[in-house]
Amino acid sequence: MRTERGPRSVLIAQSSVLTQSCWRGTVRIALDAMGGDHAPAVTVAGAVAAARNLGLEVLLVGRLAEVEAELAKHHTQGLSLSVVPASQVVEMAEHPAEAVRGKPDASIVVGLKLVQQSRAQAFVSAGNTGAGMAAALLQLKRISGIERPALGVVLPSQRGPVCLIDGGANVDVRPPWLAQFGLMGSIYMERVFGLQRPRVATLSIGEETTKGNQLVLAAQPLLRELPINYVGNVEGKDIPAGLADVVVCDGFVGNVALKLAEGVASMIVSILREEIKAGLLSSLAGLLLRPVFQRVRRRIDYAEYGGAPLLGVNGVCIIAHGRSNARAIESALRVAARAAEQDLVGHISRGLQQTLVRQPVGDGRQVSDEPGE
Amino acid sequence: MRTERGPRSVLIAQSSVLTQSCWRGTVRIALDAMGGDHAPAVTVAGAVAAARNLGLEVLLVGRLAEVEAELAKHHTQGLSLSVVPASQVVEMAEHPAEAVRGKPDASIVVGLKLVQQSRAQAFVSAGNTGAGMAAALLQLKRISGIERPALGVVLPSQRGPVCLIDGGANVDVRPPWLAQFGLMGSIYMERVFGLQRPRVATLSIGEETTKGNQLVLAAQPLLRELPINYVGNVEGKDIPAGLADVVVCDGFVGNVALKLAEGVASMIVSILREEIKAGLLSSLAGLLLRPVFQRVRRRIDYAEYGGAPLLGVNGVCIIAHGRSNARAIESALRVAARAAEQDLVGHISRGLQQTLVRQPVGDGRQVSDEPGE
Repeated sequence: MRTERGPRSVLIAQSSVLTQSCWRGTVRIALDAMGGDHAPAVTVAGAVAAARNLGLEVLLVGRLAEVEAELAKHHTQGLSLSVVPASQVVEMAEHPAEAVRGKPDASIVVGLKLVQQSRAQAFVSAGNTGAGMAAALLQLKRISGIERPALGVVLPSQRGPVCLIDGGANVDVRPPWLAQFGLMGSIYMERVFGLQRPRVATLSIGEETTKGNQLVLAAQPLLRELPINYVGNVEGKDIPAGLADVVVCDGFVGNVALKLAEGVASMIVSILREEIKAGLLSSLAGLLLRPVFQRVRRRIDYAEYGGAPLLGVNGVCIIAHGRSNARAIESALRVAARAAEQDLVGHISRGLQQTLVRQPVGDGRQVSDEPGE
Repeated sequence: MRTERGPRSVLIAQSSVLTQSCWRGTVRIALDAMGGDHAPAVTVAGAVAAARNLGLEVLLVGRLAEVEAELAKHHTQGLSLSVVPASQVVEMAEHPAEAVRGKPDASIVVGLKLVQQSRAQAFVSAGNTGAGMAAALLQLKRISGIERPALGVVLPSQRGPVCLIDGGANVDVRPPWLAQFGLMGSIYMERVFGLQRPRVATLSIGEETTKGNQLVLAAQPLLRELPINYVGNVEGKDIPAGLADVVVCDGFVGNVALKLAEGVASMIVSILREEIKAGLLSSLAGLLLRPVFQRVRRRIDYAEYGGAPLLGVNGVCIIAHGRSNARAIESALRVAARAAEQDLVGHISRGLQQTLVRQPVGDGRQVSDEPGE
């Protein structure tokens, strides 16, 4: 993904510098410099790494003084890094929709506007997930025909990355939405992760077609009609086993599943550490195994897969984990660049036009646009 | 839990031997000797261990010749073990309700009849979960006032056992059912695990009361009215962290969560093993750590907690994991004995009478009695 561009001086840009919307042969990504538990230190570090290692142009959106102070800690000569000022920050605990409405100059809002105005090709944030989704919906709008955008969270498995969709954008969903989630997840894994005919499955309580709740049973025939490789149901244990590349579920189940998987991994690591430290010999053996534990951690680390795309909005928006470190931010920027280069949004839009997965218009049921979390 | 009873000769009993329904100072439990992936070898081994270590009387229900052949491999003198003949077996892959209807002499059906006829105080099966639930509902019926029985699966956490209810009996549920699940789970953890005022929580997508899908949001006020220690929402990661003792959810979410947790643990163990074996030094260190790994495995092992009670039926019915080994069967028998001794069913029945958690009668919605799995 590294481009042919030569070095270029760091721009501590005012917004006016960025009115040019043409790309100079590289991908330009807006990063919410203020978003995440360790911002702006790790966001700036991640941006520096992405600019250096991937040749990306990164627009750091946030409080000028704070971001510049962080930038000063790095060697940035020759890297395409700019700062776009945004005076407000949505905190992690704030109510998503209210925060987005009440803080028009928040880094999340300003960053997404850059994408909406074609001044950046993608946006990345490790901030308040709900606010990121609400702002993306507001600024970018849905792709025409998409019922509800969904969060496609990419997880490690024994056989490679698995996209769980919806990871938490929609807690009460309808069968046609699930079908669209499957289509979007399939296009994402094909375009961004390079998988051929990704295996798309519904998450359920048994492999047999007859197993499932009313939602899953109603979504199955809709998924079967789509021009995707729908393989039927998988169970919870099949996600880490990697039996499907795209696992479709509602955002309630998806959110519970993601946090549970994280919690189980963390419990095992914690119990293992405790037991190793309990004896002298085992402590010693534990020291010898440190590189092994590091490799294991790397293989089960969310950071490898670089954040979750909000699929179905009219632009590339990647939501990274709030606990992201610099490597996770760099991964998210890489994924964002790949999604932009591959014209992910165009592929979803065209993929949708080819299908008949449309919810009947005017069926009287109103569902709020506001993400569940 | 060991009783004062002296040794007693093995009975290879005909059904007629068991018509006496009085207990001779010990707990008598019917075990589905044919149920589970490794039956009858592990079921018989587990029964022998429970009879020896816990002083239980176990009725082994199954094909006479097969069970006797397994019994002959053990020293059973002085143990209270009997065989109750049942000529049919429900296989793991069979459709639950059809199998129960079509095989009246199946070990699951015969075993539950022993409880229904008060010839055993509890029933344990590691066989087809759905068939176990369907047969229990048919033979034992619901406790008066219970909307739907639910599976209370006890999981390991960093702070001790956590009961996830419903673990898969009801895939499409209603808010009042969730409230009853909370009540039953609370009574179970109090009576069988000896917890004082167990912390009961709803599984949701955030800790705040406003976070959840329609089902959870509607169940919250009902749970708040109950005479239990309802602590609000927990998230997926809070289950392994042990932030609640009883976690309430619908059976779809519960089943996905259980299988996912199992899958994540298995993935981590498998990746760890692979990485350790990749080098000579790490293989050596891995050997040194073998006792540590065994302790870790034990701490995260489902077998410690001995199967899942089907709560809400009029009798004690414990469903053990299909992959149960002898130790897991022994644990399940111990839990069954404890539930019987503690009069779990009586406590649930009385607990229910004290509450007002009743679904409005005749609201027109029909839901099948057949378990989802």
